[in-house]
Amino acid sequence: MRAVTATAAPLGQAFSNLAGPACRRSFATSSRLDAGYGFIGLGRMGYPMAKNLRAKIPQSDTMVIHDVNPAVTESFAKEVGNVEIAKNVREVAEKTETILTVLPQPHHVQSVFHQILKPPTLITEAPNRRERLFIDCSTIDPRTSSEVANATHSSQQGKFVDAPMSGGVVGAAAGTLTFMVGAPADGIDRVREVLSLMGRRVIHLGPPTSGLKGKLANNYLLALNNIATCEAMHMGIKWGLDGQALADMINSATGKCWPSEANNPVPGVVPNAPAGKDYEGGFGTSLMLKDLGLALTACAQADVVPRLGPYAKDIYAAAEGAEDCKGRDFSVVYRYLGGKE
Amino acid sequence: MRAVTATAAPLGQAFSNLAGPACRRSFATSSRLDAGYGFIGLGRMGYPMAKNLRAKIPQSDTMVIHDVNPAVTESFAKEVGNVEIAKNVREVAEKTETILTVLPQPHHVQSVFHQILKPPTLITEAPNRRERLFIDCSTIDPRTSSEVANATHSSQQGKFVDAPMSGGVVGAAAGTLTFMVGAPADGIDRVREVLSLMGRRVIHLGPPTSGLKGKLANNYLLALNNIATCEAMHMGIKWGLDGQALADMINSATGKCWPSEANNPVPGVVPNAPAGKDYEGGFGTSLMLKDLGLALTACAQADVVPRLGPYAKDIYAAAEGAEDCKGRDFSVVYRYLGGKE
Repeated sequence: MRAVTATAAPLGQAFSNLAGPACRRSFATSSRLDAGYGFIGLGRMGYPMAKNLRAKIPQSDTMVIHDVNPAVTESFAKEVGNVEIAKNVREVAEKTETILTVLPQPHHVQSVFHQILKPPTLITEAPNRRERLFIDCSTIDPRTSSEVANATHSSQQGKFVDAPMSGGVVGAAAGTLTFMVGAPADGIDRVREVLSLMGRRVIHLGPPTSGLKGKLANNYLLALNNIATCEAMHMGIKWGLDGQALADMINSATGKCWPSEANNPVPGVVPNAPAGKDYEGGFGTSLMLKDLGLALTACAQADVVPRLGPYAKDIYAAAEGAEDCKGRDFSVVYRYLGGKE
Repeated sequence: MRAVTATAAPLGQAFSNLAGPACRRSFATSSRLDAGYGFIGLGRMGYPMAKNLRAKIPQSDTMVIHDVNPAVTESFAKEVGNVEIAKNVREVAEKTETILTVLPQPHHVQSVFHQILKPPTLITEAPNRRERLFIDCSTIDPRTSSEVANATHSSQQGKFVDAPMSGGVVGAAAGTLTFMVGAPADGIDRVREVLSLMGRRVIHLGPPTSGLKGKLANNYLLALNNIATCEAMHMGIKWGLDGQALADMINSATGKCWPSEANNPVPGVVPNAPAGKDYEGGFGTSLMLKDLGLALTACAQADVVPRLGPYAKDIYAAAEGAEDCKGRDFSVVYRYLGGKE
């Protein structure tokens, strides 16, 4: 159970220093749940996640929160209650043991952990002297995440795992998110326990950075499948086919994919899909652009030459720049292409 | 039941001339199955389809076959038996009533029907004086198909429907093909009856050319989804992820599509997929190139600007031109990209 996979060796080594009695206890029982939780980044995703977390952990457990915008933490304290507002991120890490971060960009993650990790006295001098578990739910590039993970592990103050999510704001509010996790095998049980308080599925893909890599590969694929679906539906309808008949055929054939079946870009084909609500809600084109950009960066770092991705990025950027498409679900590419609505 | 949809009006009109007692009988009973069948084009798809047809129709029914290659028809007569070999395609049409064509290129379809339709005496003077039902299972461009359909209908010798298929050689042999049909509503029952002898599903998409349009839209989508899957699997594995773990995650997430789930390009991920057999069998890259080319032609004819398709075509062409990829299943794009096997 404590076996460390080959690829996780350096991290496993760092973690073995932390595998003291407190750590073992957490794997054997759920009494760890009486420990403190920290939450940094109460944005559109973080806020509802933190709300679910506070509702699911015992009332006696401490929860310490922080956000760059003080109005947000105050609003959270008022709406949800039973939380302590920290004046900075270091204070969150000093007072709690399991710390979640949900931040928008790589530099935010770097900056937050730079503040958290120095001085390296969280275990030796802080009010709470247990090893820390840092779960970063931000979607950033794997290289930055790896640097932060290494800095955390070499500081010997805790373990760092990447756990980007899918499911959007709706999933965050409903507690139905899917988390893709990169963590050493010997830390996954506790990670699963925590994330299950905010989501429905926790998929462990391998050692640290694997969660991010999986999410970026999936979203690269999704980015292309979505444009392909918008194009196929557009051409079929321009050729004179009935949109519903075409979608039904595709969804019983080899063209079937999430964008054709669950998020069809033609208004009315899938009840309640964003297409039928003027492309409101759903997965914003700007978020897809962000993920696609991260995937392309990670490709460049690994000497992978992306083929269709760069063209897809241009299409999403152009759609996001069009007045009637801006700020909408990424299926709005259908409208951008001139699709009949 | 005999209502003609608005878009099918001109064809419906032509067909109303043919709706004599023989025609009505065919919809009400299956006694039409005692009539003669013609089969033109016994290639890789046509041969096993014709074989299934001969096996499923009563032994007393006539079957007349033709192929440009006489060795093939002789071989068929020897292997299957109970068929008459026609010396040309006109003879097939003169002696039978339901005629299937399975031809490789648009010009083959044009040429065959040019020979079949002249002189326009099939109903007035031929040995069999019933109206003809021509079912063209070739995958060609909708414009050519429309021209041939119009020529057939204006000659008043029968009706012409397009019924391209999916399922490949394996599906043709097993009789599990899916047919996408473009036919007037009042002719679909008999078409369904005939095609069900060679396939499992018959999807009626609308008036003539709709079957082809549906197939081309679906395969355009599939062409892109396949490259996207090859790219996503390649980058994930290059980043260090386990191929099986990545595929499992994608297939439970928004990246799921036919190429990721049923035809995963990474050897061993999907048992019996072509990837695990050195990319043998499956759907040849050259066929995908053909369909993609037809879709792009149809886009140009309808003033639709394809976005990712032209780039995809370049990738398939380059893969088909690579020594270790040529002549293999289209998932071989993964190998072409340098994917780890």
